[in-house]
Amino acid sequence: MISFIDFCDYTGTFAFAISGIRLASAKQFDWFGAYVVGIVTAVGGGTVRDILLNSTPFWTEQPSYLIISGLALLFVIAFRKYLVTLDNTFFIFDAIGLGLFVVVGVEKTLSFGHPMWVAIVMGTITGSFGGLIRDILINEVPLIFRKDIYALACLGGGLVYCGCMMLSFPPTPTQFVSALSIFLIRVVAVKYHISVPVLKGEE
Amino acid sequence: MISFIDFCDYTGTFAFAISGIRLASAKQFDWFGAYVVGIVTAVGGGTVRDILLNSTPFWTEQPSYLIISGLALLFVIAFRKYLVTLDNTFFIFDAIGLGLFVVVGVEKTLSFGHPMWVAIVMGTITGSFGGLIRDILINEVPLIFRKDIYALACLGGGLVYCGCMMLSFPPTPTQFVSALSIFLIRVVAVKYHISVPVLKGEE
Amino acid sequence: MISFIDFCDYTGTFAFAISGIRLASAKQFDWFGAYVVGIVTAVGGGTVRDILLNSTPFWTEQPSYLIISGLALLFVIAFRKYLVTLDNTFFIFDAIGLGLFVVVGVEKTLSFGHPMWVAIVMGTITGSFGGLIRDILINEVPLIFRKDIYALACLGGGLVYCGCMMLSFPPTPTQFVSALSIFLIRVVAVKYHISVPVLKGEE
Repeated sequence: MISFIDFCDYTGTFAFAISGIRLASAKQFDWFGAYVVGIVTAVGGGTVRDILLNSTPFWTEQPSYLIISGLALLFVIAFRKYLVTLDNTFFIFDAIGLGLFVVVGVEKTLSFGHPMWVAIVMGTITGSFGGLIRDILINEVPLIFRKDIYALACLGGGLVYCGCMMLSFPPTPTQFVSALSIFLIRVVAVKYHISVPVLKGEE
Repeated sequence: MISFIDFCDYTGTFAFAISGIRLASAKQFDWFGAYVVGIVTAVGGGTVRDILLNSTPFWTEQPSYLIISGLALLFVIAFRKYLVTLDNTFFIFDAIGLGLFVVVGVEKTLSFGHPMWVAIVMGTITGSFGGLIRDILINEVPLIFRKDIYALACLGGGLVYCGCMMLSFPPTPTQFVSALSIFLIRVVAVKYHISVPVLKGEE
Repeated sequence: MISFIDFCDYTGTFAFAISGIRLASAKQFDWFGAYVVGIVTAVGGGTVRDILLNSTPFWTEQPSYLIISGLALLFVIAFRKYLVTLDNTFFIFDAIGLGLFVVVGVEKTLSFGHPMWVAIVMGTITGSFGGLIRDILINEVPLIFRKDIYALACLGGGLVYCGCMMLSFPPTPTQFVSALSIFLIRVVAVKYHISVPVLKGEE
């Protein structure tokens, strides 16, 4: 049986890959190109974190991320007409994955001996840079900088993690509370259309 | 005298750099900018591989890649009116280089103790990410995801390499057969306009 | 009291961050997105250098770069109507920072045992890749490849550094002369509209 953590990891990977594959399909990518964009969306954030930590990329340790991204491609091909009706489901999966990815990023960075503020930055990178690279690959201005609260939710979760540690919470509640806070920030921000103000231009 | 491997390496580097420089010139880049795009196209894939392997970038070991990219720039400046007539030659050079680069990527990854599937992924990255970064730099939707069979030829060559190893081929025939298979996949795909189906959008 | 080197470092970081934040505001980024673009512009070049050197990213050692980028964001928000009148000041700050960043990049690379030509390449990357990544993030064709002399000024400063070493200059004058040469190349190039010729296309 897979653990709860693995379940969240696979769910998030699937949702992240789906988002990359759908945006690639809107740009007329071929199947293989869409698959690559799906993988990069799913593992890109953690890969940038691992590069910055001088660590072996996490996805080289087991092929599950590539397999799940492949399943996401097949899912999009098979059910493309019904994808829009699943938007809310994908959103929930994405938010679950985001919470987990950030917490994993924070913990891995701390385990490398970095201070808390670096861990929060790395957690934010883990959660948000997959979507960032996705948007670069499809040649669009990155969505995470212009819509809803996404990268900021990662930062918020990192701060909650930091707060839990300062309050001497044990590890498991710390992980759970910070992942949950990211999930809730995302859900509330999207439901109530809360977003960061746009930076006004000079004219 | 240079070896056959070095000959393929330099030929491929030249062809990759030419492709970057030509696309940069279409975007009004200046000479130095075009040179940078040429270098990045030629060494970008191997550099991403080396970063992921936590290895020193291969091009820091000898300046030949920078010099060959410089020669490619001079070539484009001097012969720009005749470049179109050389398209077939560049295509052949590019396909030769692609075969070699993928095999080098697969072998380097295996020498770092990674399993075969990681080596195939790294070989594909070695062959295709230079063109990917090139297209990001010139601000275009990456061509390798939309046209002909390019990244998929790299993957195919990696699988052939894997097959040869399972059949206990000695190293040299394994290298030769897998590089040749990449070369042939590219030539056949372009000659007969074979491509991966486009992923249909949702409307 | 902060040293002269730190003063140049902070000044350059501030100017680089300002350039990223201003370009992000022109693309309707939100505050947090603009902040991220500011940070990446300021630390991106040094981060790419550190990744290529297999070194821990310099900005993880102290939070000053993130704080200065935050101050740059507040500055843009508070004084956006007067930013244009400060263009010359920002340009001078940017050129001071550029000189320092390149010299730091050259020295760090030499300290890792690389030959001089690799150090010059890494110095150029340190100075110019922040602006390059900035332009990729805001989805524009990179400015440094098309306007004024920017990356080439970094290369020039690296060559001056190399020349000073060959003439057996002591470290401090070598650093000062090469940083000053970058500063002067930038000022002269912009003041007299000197630029590298555009690479002509094929038609």
